[in-house]
Amino acid sequence: MSENKIYFTLDEDFQMHRGGFLLNPTIAYETWGELNNQKDNAVFIFTGLSPSSHAASSKKDPREGWWEGIIGPKKSIDTEKFFVICMNSLGSCFGSTGPSSVNPKTNDKYRMTFPILSLEDIARAGMKLINHLQIESLHTNVGPSIGGMSSIAFELLFPGFTKNLILISTGPHSISFTIALRSLQREMIYSDPEWNNGNYHDSQLPLKGMKLARKLGMMTYRSSDEWLERFSREKISKTSINSILSPSFQIESYLDHNADKFTSSFDPNAYLYLSKASDLFDACDYGNSLDDSINKISASRVGIIGVKSDFLFPVYQQRQLVDIFKRSGKLVEYLELNSIQGHDSFLVDIDKFSSAIKSFFKIF
Amino acid sequence: MSENKIYFTLDEDFQMHRGGFLLNPTIAYETWGELNNQKDNAVFIFTGLSPSSHAASSKKDPREGWWEGIIGPKKSIDTEKFFVICMNSLGSCFGSTGPSSVNPKTNDKYRMTFPILSLEDIARAGMKLINHLQIESLHTNVGPSIGGMSSIAFELLFPGFTKNLILISTGPHSISFTIALRSLQREMIYSDPEWNNGNYHDSQLPLKGMKLARKLGMMTYRSSDEWLERFSREKISKTSINSILSPSFQIESYLDHNADKFTSSFDPNAYLYLSKASDLFDACDYGNSLDDSINKISASRVGIIGVKSDFLFPVYQQRQLVDIFKRSGKLVEYLELNSIQGHDSFLVDIDKFSSAIKSFFKIF
Repeated sequence: MSENKIYFTLDEDFQMHRGGFLLNPTIAYETWGELNNQKDNAVFIFTGLSPSSHAASSKKDPREGWWEGIIGPKKSIDTEKFFVICMNSLGSCFGSTGPSSVNPKTNDKYRMTFPILSLEDIARAGMKLINHLQIESLHTNVGPSIGGMSSIAFELLFPGFTKNLILISTGPHSISFTIALRSLQREMIYSDPEWNNGNYHDSQLPLKGMKLARKLGMMTYRSSDEWLERFSREKISKTSINSILSPSFQIESYLDHNADKFTSSFDPNAYLYLSKASDLFDACDYGNSLDDSINKISASRVGIIGVKSDFLFPVYQQRQLVDIFKRSGKLVEYLELNSIQGHDSFLVDIDKFSSAIKSFFKIF
Repeated sequence: MSENKIYFTLDEDFQMHRGGFLLNPTIAYETWGELNNQKDNAVFIFTGLSPSSHAASSKKDPREGWWEGIIGPKKSIDTEKFFVICMNSLGSCFGSTGPSSVNPKTNDKYRMTFPILSLEDIARAGMKLINHLQIESLHTNVGPSIGGMSSIAFELLFPGFTKNLILISTGPHSISFTIALRSLQREMIYSDPEWNNGNYHDSQLPLKGMKLARKLGMMTYRSSDEWLERFSREKISKTSINSILSPSFQIESYLDHNADKFTSSFDPNAYLYLSKASDLFDACDYGNSLDDSINKISASRVGIIGVKSDFLFPVYQQRQLVDIFKRSGKLVEYLELNSIQGHDSFLVDIDKFSSAIKSFFKIF
């Protein structure tokens, strides 16, 4: 099975937002559909913290993508109409240059010498890719979760480029609680002695720390009501327990299996960099106030989706964006969904999200 | 400064609820006020996971107690009227026998050879203490947080003993999300190599694991709204960051300082045992259904407090208890408070809790 992934290597150095630079970084991406002659049907997707560019299957790579239910022929993001691009974020570990990539200057992996990563770097990498593809405007910029903050960063850095903006389960920045959760996840990784200041061997990853971080992630990406509905207090075994260290409840073994899958596929240093970048981003940096900053976004139509059970980017953050966009005279559609899957609903409750995104494209 | 704490050592072995026994365990406790001649003014307090028996100051020990605003002369739990007893839970580390105590049989610390701890053991230890104090009935049994589940265990094990029951920010058992959080906290501790299967030295505690566990505890004992109100996105320093490992936000340094205080005072193994006991308790074990179990509680008046921002023991759990108690014909008072401090509100929002508890004692 060959991959659909394309690698684009910049023929120049890449200046990082908070200082430092990358020598000729590579950006991995995938596309679906065709750019039309008018070059006005491009839809760009910024991803959340962990996904790769493989948002949907294709003839070349039939594996199910992370947004398979949303992207495809006649789906909400219709690849018969649109040229859809999804990029692996700069700083990640699925083809784009990140801490696990080799620094051409030293021939060693960057690891913790990778410069501070900002969501602005991901947005600028997106623009480099868009230029490379000879796209002169975006029909729609789509950002779910942290990708939504990258989309906002893109709009603030490159006003006038995008016609329509879709922001999903995101906000203008992260709230205190979400920062605290991410900070703790990072500490779990670097408290693991195997992390070794980032100099772990591929055969000896900081698996315990990654597992803890992923479990906390999974618990908080979803909602308490979902766990209650799925697992209640179901036990693993009816027999009495022998050790207080053994898990007793189904939810414990579910989180354990889920974490094992993740820890074997994601680079720990990349996780640290992307997580910190998510804490640091603040749309307020672009003006005297949040209103002032958001008013600098020029896309004329905005679709926003919030989920009531999301406590990482709570609905008051999406409502706040809606209010500001409305005050600035944009056409704004806001949908607040009752999905039970919390922050991750956009990946799971495909029925509701499919209709919601479809309704946006009807007015775009 | 001398302590008010009293140590009572059983002259018999103590059979544990899930098997095994303790040789002549010790129970540490404190009392305030005097038992009257009729012996009908005893108020017993079961504590949450981490507090000691020092719930309030006294002449002998003037240090502020963990419920200083609630217990005292003319306070909500009025020590001029009542003989108030607070016990350090069996399995804890503030004087009562726990994993850090020496097993008389081996002359070594119990550590992980301590038998499985259940909240029923804490309830039974409470009854041993009550017998020792020659108290023949409880005026009121008070349980906040996990102490509320110990209070329920006491009521189920010793029906007919208690007249009034106060349950605060608790439930008949822990929900999936709360189990998952505790399970992860335990994993943080035993993932720390310094934990060493429980055989750590006092000079080399699993501080990293304890710190992670305490931070997650602190974050989830409170509420997202409280963190937002107190810290918003306040930075530690206005200067640019040098390393992605350094904390950047005030909430990160607050949680760090708070965790340091805790980790130096609580025994890691005791934490593991008490945490697991909290997961395992289920009032449903005492009947064919939750209703059937709770109907076995004979206290005739019940005061229940829930806090809307608590997501460890959400208000639907307190409402469920209220409904069952009402159906069984008890006099039930329920107060649902708007405190912003989440599960910990009973320790922090003393104004609201003081009035609430005072109102219960008016009808008791």
